[in-house]
Amino acid sequence: MIEAKTDIIVRYAETDKMGVVYHSNYFTWFEIGRVRLLDDIGHSYLKLENSGFRLPVLEATAKFIRPAFFDDRLVIHTTIREKPKVRMQIEYEIWREETILCTGVTRHAFVNEQGIPTRPPPLFIEQMGPYFR
Amino acid sequence: MIEAKTDIIVRYAETDKMGVVYHSNYFTWFEIGRVRLLDDIGHSYLKLENSGFRLPVLEATAKFIRPAFFDDRLVIHTTIREKPKVRMQIEYEIWREETILCTGVTRHAFVNEQGIPTRPPPLFIEQMGPYFR
Amino acid sequence: MIEAKTDIIVRYAETDKMGVVYHSNYFTWFEIGRVRLLDDIGHSYLKLENSGFRLPVLEATAKFIRPAFFDDRLVIHTTIREKPKVRMQIEYEIWREETILCTGVTRHAFVNEQGIPTRPPPLFIEQMGPYFR
Amino acid sequence: MIEAKTDIIVRYAETDKMGVVYHSNYFTWFEIGRVRLLDDIGHSYLKLENSGFRLPVLEATAKFIRPAFFDDRLVIHTTIREKPKVRMQIEYEIWREETILCTGVTRHAFVNEQGIPTRPPPLFIEQMGPYFR
Repeated sequence: MIEAKTDIIVRYAETDKMGVVYHSNYFTWFEIGRVRLLDDIGHSYLKLENSGFRLPVLEATAKFIRPAFFDDRLVIHTTIREKPKVRMQIEYEIWREETILCTGVTRHAFVNEQGIPTRPPPLFIEQMGPYFR
Repeated sequence: MIEAKTDIIVRYAETDKMGVVYHSNYFTWFEIGRVRLLDDIGHSYLKLENSGFRLPVLEATAKFIRPAFFDDRLVIHTTIREKPKVRMQIEYEIWREETILCTGVTRHAFVNEQGIPTRPPPLFIEQMGPYFR
Repeated sequence: MIEAKTDIIVRYAETDKMGVVYHSNYFTWFEIGRVRLLDDIGHSYLKLENSGFRLPVLEATAKFIRPAFFDDRLVIHTTIREKPKVRMQIEYEIWREETILCTGVTRHAFVNEQGIPTRPPPLFIEQMGPYFR
Repeated sequence: MIEAKTDIIVRYAETDKMGVVYHSNYFTWFEIGRVRLLDDIGHSYLKLENSGFRLPVLEATAKFIRPAFFDDRLVIHTTIREKPKVRMQIEYEIWREETILCTGVTRHAFVNEQGIPTRPPPLFIEQMGPYFR
């Protein structure tokens, strides 16, 4: 299992006329979480892209439990529970202090620059290894 | 069952460096679909809000089947299969001509201005009636 | 002079907690206006890109006169007053019926795929010709 | 004069198919800069709003000098040069290490909850005082 935590501050642009964060922004926050997780294990998303890999989102789900507000200090918890193969599932929780606001899941495929599904790069698999023993 | 169709043209702002539409934008498109569906039955979302109701998203899911590109002409198909009560489920499909790009589901609650779950307005239930006989 | 008009409906996602459209969205609307203007003269932005040209924004300005609201039906007026050379200036007005909400200007350079400033494609210059006699 | 600096990391969602940050996002970054500046002087934007004030954008301008890329670590420099009265002008620079990417200016009005232009709250004027002697 791999876990990462990232802090964000809610932007005014992310709110809507209901006075709370517009729901689609949580999916952008999930992306911030997974970018950070990949940074933490030492194989950044940028590095993956630069070596010819892409990780398109195949499926994304979120449950909105409580609203987030402008200027909230939030924490994105990101978790990979199962060792990634051709596909990778990532889970997310958005917290404001002791309150959970949102949970979510994204599923991704490793593809090459032509969009063909492929195995993740060997170095990536190696760097993931210690987390799933 | 209620169905609605809306046309959109993909904006440059909606693409990302992968050259395709960034996935969170589909959730914004779903919103366009449901706003149109409510317009079509004669009870616009704005009217709902102005009479003190909100329809926050409780849950949102999307499956991304094929990418959408800048300047694509897309059609959003929006469907309500079951008569809304305190909650409402809405389904979406995004099409580019004969090709389906994305499917999705959102679940909503009717709440009042204090955020308390409530029944939909009687006129709304009445206007929905003919579609579910 | 070239002029184009495009209709848009304000999206919920474009509003903020002040209850009006968040200002940065107007710049996205300007883009919709210029994409439509290029469509109208028969040389779409996609065609420009596919033949190796880019039109990055060098400068963008907007004056916000009156707010736009969710579900507003707006018209984007887009105008090119001077024949484009290596650079191109485009002007915008956003109207809700008889009320002007916003004016703006963007300046663009024609660049090639390496980002080097370049002259616009000859066919584009030719198609622009009749509008500036 | 008041100055503030804020760090941001470019989000994937902020890029477009040109492979760089889509220009309208800089205006959102400017907002992050001014929210931080107000935090730094001890009168947060949230506090302004909660005491019945709004700071709508009257005008916004940006010059785009060099592109920003996904995962770039950027610094937003925000400056107020003249003591705010009914209106306030704020200047911005976006830097990637020693490289300036963008400059911008926004002009704001203090308005009350009815949108009527008004003087800033006395406490705010007092907190601003020491910076403009």
